[in-house]
Parts: sequence; C-alpha cells; structure tokens
Amino acid sequence: MTGAHGKRELQRQLERVLAGAEELLGEEELRARLAEALAGGAPLRVKLGVDPSTPDLHLGHTVVLHKLRVFQELGHVPIFLIGDFTARIGDPSGRKKTRPALDPDAVRRNAETYLEQVAAILDVERAEVRFNSEWMNELPAEEFVRLCSHYTVARILERDDFQQRYAAGEPISVHEFLYPFVQAYDSVVLRADLELGGTDQRFNLLMAREIQRAYGQAPQAVLLHPLLVGTDGREKMSKSLGNAIGIHEPPEEVYGKTMRLSDETMLGYFDLLQVASWEDLRPARAELGRGGGDPFVFKQELARRLVERFHGERAAERAAAHFRRVVREGGTPDDLPEREVPLGSDGEIGLLELLERLGLVESRSEARRLVAQGAVQIDGERVSDPTRRLGPGVHLLRAGRRRFARARLRPGGPSP
Amino acid sequence: MTGAHGKRELQRQLERVLAGAEELLGEEELRARLAEALAGGAPLRVKLGVDPSTPDLHLGHTVVLHKLRVFQELGHVPIFLIGDFTARIGDPSGRKKTRPALDPDAVRRNAETYLEQVAAILDVERAEVRFNSEWMNELPAEEFVRLCSHYTVARILERDDFQQRYAAGEPISVHEFLYPFVQAYDSVVLRADLELGGTDQRFNLLMAREIQRAYGQAPQAVLLHPLLVGTDGREKMSKSLGNAIGIHEPPEEVYGKTMRLSDETMLGYFDLLQVASWEDLRPARAELGRGGGDPFVFKQELARRLVERFHGERAAERAAAHFRRVVREGGTPDDLPEREVPLGSDGEIGLLELLERLGLVESRSEARRLVAQGAVQIDGERVSDPTRRLGPGVHLLRAGRRRFARARLRPGGPSP
Repeated sequence: MTGAHGKRELQRQLERVLAGAEELLGEEELRARLAEALAGGAPLRVKLGVDPSTPDLHLGHTVVLHKLRVFQELGHVPIFLIGDFTARIGDPSGRKKTRPALDPDAVRRNAETYLEQVAAILDVERAEVRFNSEWMNELPAEEFVRLCSHYTVARILERDDFQQRYAAGEPISVHEFLYPFVQAYDSVVLRADLELGGTDQRFNLLMAREIQRAYGQAPQAVLLHPLLVGTDGREKMSKSLGNAIGIHEPPEEVYGKTMRLSDETMLGYFDLLQVASWEDLRPARAELGRGGGDPFVFKQELARRLVERFHGERAAERAAAHFRRVVREGGTPDDLPEREVPLGSDGEIGLLELLERLGLVESRSEARRLVAQGAVQIDGERVSDPTRRLGPGVHLLRAGRRRFARARLRPGGPSP
Repeated sequence: MTGAHGKRELQRQLERVLAGAEELLGEEELRARLAEALAGGAPLRVKLGVDPSTPDLHLGHTVVLHKLRVFQELGHVPIFLIGDFTARIGDPSGRKKTRPALDPDAVRRNAETYLEQVAAILDVERAEVRFNSEWMNELPAEEFVRLCSHYTVARILERDDFQQRYAAGEPISVHEFLYPFVQAYDSVVLRADLELGGTDQRFNLLMAREIQRAYGQAPQAVLLHPLLVGTDGREKMSKSLGNAIGIHEPPEEVYGKTMRLSDETMLGYFDLLQVASWEDLRPARAELGRGGGDPFVFKQELARRLVERFHGERAAERAAAHFRRVVREGGTPDDLPEREVPLGSDGEIGLLELLERLGLVESRSEARRLVAQGAVQIDGERVSDPTRRLGPGVHLLRAGRRRFARARLRPGGPSP
C-alpha cells in the first residue's frame, strides 16, 4: 500500500472505529498497529469479553458487538471472549453488592445462547470465539499469585465502585479483587491489540495494559463506549433491573418497548445503536436535536429498524402493524385463534382460573391484581369482580394492554 | 480413663501446653478436644508452620518448636508444616515492605536444612512433616478464588502491618493478601485442631478459624507465644537484622553471643526458652527478678545450657572453656595448630594477604579495616600499618576479638 493511499485508509479505518466511542486510550499504540497492519503486517487482534451471567443479550450489549463487527469488516481479527471462568466468580464492576457466582451448568447454557444471539450481528464463523476457562482452569496457583503481584491493593481500591463500597463500610470479598486480574490475564493470553468495552470497564481494561507490560507485551489500546440506559431512561440497561430490551425477544415486544421510550431516551438509543448503518436517518435525527421534526414518526422508524436488525424485514412490518392495531388503536388482533376451554362440573369456570388457563397471566394472584387495576375485560367490558364466573359461550378476554385470547367455553370432559 | 483421673490429666496437659504462652484463643475447643483425646479419641493434630525463606533456624524459632515437642511428648500428632509454596509468595506479616519471593531451588534447599536442624528438638521420625506445595500446586484457580470469597478486604486491611502500610501510602501488592488464605487453607487440609505461632501471627491464625468454619470444620484453637527479641535486645530476632543466634552456629558462637546479652535480655531468653526443662534454675531466676543473685553466673549457665541443647554436653563444656580463655582472660586458644604459609619470591608476605590466607578475614578490605581499627595483632602487638610485610618465622596472628592463627612462614615453593 502506497504512502498517500495508506494514510487515507488509516484515517478511514480510524474514523469508522471511533464512531460513537466515548474514549480511546493508547491512541499512539492503535495508530502504530493499524499502520503496521495496513502495510501488510498482521491484522489487529480485537477483544470483546462478555460475562455469560444471564442467558440473554440485550440492546446494551450490541453497542460494542457492532463495533466488533466493524473491526471484522475492516479485516481485523474479532475475538469474542466468553468469560465462563469469570462468570463463576461474579464481576462486581459498577455494582453495589457482590454478584453471586454461577454454577458451571448455568454458565455453559448461557454461553450457548449467547453465541446464537451474537450470530445476528457478528460473522461468528470467521471470528475467534474463546472461553477463558481454557487457560484459567489450567493456571497453577503459583502463577495466579505471581499475576496478583503486579498491582497494588491501593490502586484496586481506587476503582469507583470499590472505593464507594469500602468508604460505606460495605463488605468487599477478597475474591472480587481477583476478577480484574483474570480479565487482564485474558488479554495477555490472547495477545490483544485492542479491547472494547463500556465506560464502566475503564479501570479493568486499563489495568490490563499494565499487566500486559509486566508480561513483556505491548499494551492494548482501550476503546470505551457509553452505556445504553434502560427503557426507564435512568439506569444502565440490565436484565435484573427489568429495563432491558432483549435481542431474543419477539418482534412485537422489541417494537412496543421501543415505542414506549421517552423521546429523549429514544434519541440516545439511535445515537448509540446506529453504528454507521443508518446514515439515511441522520438528517432527521439532527432536526429533532434542534427541536424540529416528529419524534413519534422517528421512534416508529427506530423501532422498525431494531426489529429488522434482529428478526428481518417481514417481522418488522408485522410488528409495526401489530403495534398500530393493538396499542395505538385499542383494537384486537384480528388473527386471534379460538381456543377451547372445558367448564367445570357445575357448567361454569372462575375468571381468574380462565385467565390463567389461557396463559394471559403468570398466576392467579397476578390475575387478581389486574382485575383490581381495572385491566381485565370480557368482550370489551371492564370486570371489577374477581369472583366472576362464566358459563358456555365464546368470549374475548383481555388482560393488560396487549394480552388477548378468544375462548370457546364448553361443558366439561374432553371434546369429541 | 476414669473421670477424676481424666480431669487431673487434662489439667496437667493444659498446664504444660500453656506454659510460656501469651494467649490462647478457642480455649473451649481445646478443652473439648483434649478431653475427647484423653477419653480414647483421636489425639490432637497440632500444626506449626514455618516459611523456609532463610536457610537457618534461630533461637526465635525454637520457642514454638519446643512447644510442639511438648505436644508430641503428650501423645498428640505434631505437624511440622514447611511452607514451601508460601515462601515463594513471601509473607509480609509484621514487615514494612513486600518480602521478595524465593526461587523454588532456594526454598527446597532451605527446607532440607530446616529438617536437619529441627531434629535437634522434635522427634522428626514420629512427626507429620508436610509441605504445602503438596496441595497448593494442585489447587485449581477456581477453588483458589472460592477460598478468597470467605473473607473481606476491609478485614484483611485491619491487620496491623497492612493498616500501617496502607495508611502510610506504602504499596501492598494484591498477592500479599493471598498469603493468609493459603495459610488458612493449610489448616483446612491438615484438619488442624490447634495451631502454634508467635504473637505476630495472631491475625492469620484467627482467620484460619473462620476459613475452617466456611469449609465445615471445627475451628482450630490458637496458641500464641511471645516473640524472642534479638541479641540487640530491641527488635524481633531475625537473621536479616543480624541479631540472631542460629541453632546451627558453632558452640563457641552460641556461647559467646549469649554471654554478650544484656542482663535484662538474658532473663527474657531464659523465660521463653526454658520450656519445662530447666525447672532447677527457676529459684535463681526468681532471685534475679527480685534484684538479687549474680546475673553473670546465671548468664554462663544459660549459655552452657543453650549449647548443650543443640550440640550436647561436651560441646557446652568446651565452649565455656573457650569463652573463659579467649574472651574474658584475653588469652589465646592453647590448642591452636601451627599452619605453614609459603612466602613470596622476595622471601616476604604482606600482612593483609597473610590474614586472608589464614582465613581470619573474608577479604583484604576487611583485613584493612581491622588494621585501621587496631584490631590486628602480631605476637600480641597491635599493628597499625596495613602495608607491613613479614619474613620467615613462626607468628601468632589475631584478627578481631576471637580469631587466632599460628603461622609458620617459610621460603616459597611447596614444602619437601
């Protein structure tokens, strides 16, 4: 590659790589390695580690996953590291409490579903997929101890979350101190040139630079991305906080949850999730930023594209139609199948039992709560009596805003 | 064993075991286990761990070694644990700085000499001698991490030395936090009923009680002994501080160093080192405590008994005679053999070279320093000129207070 062309290409790659990122540490190292790669040297080894501590990935994870995809498109080596060993420790980063350790079976199951979900974004076949149990299960205790000699207690306690917990007198178990060492050692084993992460991983990823130096390696560059807030618009997106949009969720859920975001939160999602592929929407985005445009129309477009990203174009169209019908117009899904429910020996069935049988509620107590909230309808009429009983006939049941069922109630015994 | 007899025997064992100790933690556990053992149950498993970080044991180590011997005499199981794994970490207990880790070869050599030296006190053949590398080398990283989950950072930082270093802003490497966990895990593996140690080990030995509980074991009792001060009468005895009396040292050294102790330090030594075997001297000790008696006579007796303990009775007599002659009376050893030294081609030899050849000094620079200090004599006369040369003849050379040689200087070339 010639000098001028090489420089342009370097600049182009840097721009794509830095889009949407909040902070780059080790820019000199990154420029040097990129130039080397463009001059025919080895491509960059780009690490993204995830902890398989929950079974599902959500939109928050996809921010850095898309960035990893960008590196893959640029010809570098994407390393998707599944921290199956680390998940068994539990990462306390950014948490106020010790995260419980997971058993190995749960970790393995989670890791499997992760890969299926990641395949929607990353070309997994051409990526380096690794599990850190591969080397951590073999690490002698002596080497572990030596690893831990390369960093001081005082500096680890400087990490925001540790500092706050220590100052507040909240217990920090010593094993939590070991987590960032394992994460750093992963970078040593993988010989990472760059690591991707959220801004809450700043400390750990920087520490890895020093541990790499201690092991005689050039330190990795660190590329940090803002954290996606949850659907509540306040906390970091997290399944355990109940504010997540999972990428495995049905198209209707993804669409509906997106539509219920506040306008401000919605624009933040667009900014973080666009990742160089929704250029056409940027003018509309800019107009909204200036107080113009129609946020509702834009939100519909964002919801449609998110569903399309994970489920394809047809699912996106269906989800949009579903949303219009059910949520906006207060109508019912027109393709609702009729379901048979046998009545009791007295020729009737209680409402709460019926809602449960139809799967519209998780439990009778949820059914009772929805009735009390006035959120249950029979044939379009609100029900206020939880002891209401129904006889034979066809009824349209509704629980909450979007759960419907058409039930044919018939006298007991199996149907002929 | 019948009730009344059992109670008397329990009391007798407790008294022997507690003699000279400073603190017993877990007295209830100890009484219960002793009673169980006396009733025909398993004997107590009594752990004493040492770090083979220096090649030689000194008197400071013998305080707890003798106590281990007492347990052995009472029919219990003495466990002499050589912390060969831990020595490779380096124990920072009571230190102001991180102790350097040792290489495995040095650790193995030290462990070998330890056992030879311990045999002077403990019946090693009937003791359980263990190395913690046996289980630590096999410990999976995951189990190590789990081990470290059983104690908090804040509580480890409460340990005096860590607290002081942390407050003073002196670096503490994270691997130093792992040391007490390994020591505690040793107690788990060894199923220790009691652990012996110096008062500086209080924190670690107590922590082992909690770790044992976490592993579902009854916690060990902890029996702490005062630390022996060094010959300087101030600091804890330690080879690296140059204030130690090594139990491997020649009888004359042990005797002479003991005689040079201050009277107060000497009495402290007696109290800690008597260990139920020097009862006959206690009245004299008590008289000295009241300001009466002759400290010098008592000191001679202590010196003699210390040499006897490690080298036998005859060595003790010789060391006493040597001390009287050389140190007190300023005389020369009367059994000094004559040694031949060939002169140079000019029929002479330089004084510094001669002192070195005779092994009276470690180096010419030491020889030069001793001459400058007026500490070198030829035939009883002090020499002040380091360039002094000697011709043929027989001379008595003296360097320092106690190094003598009789040399026959003869013209060059091998003797016929």
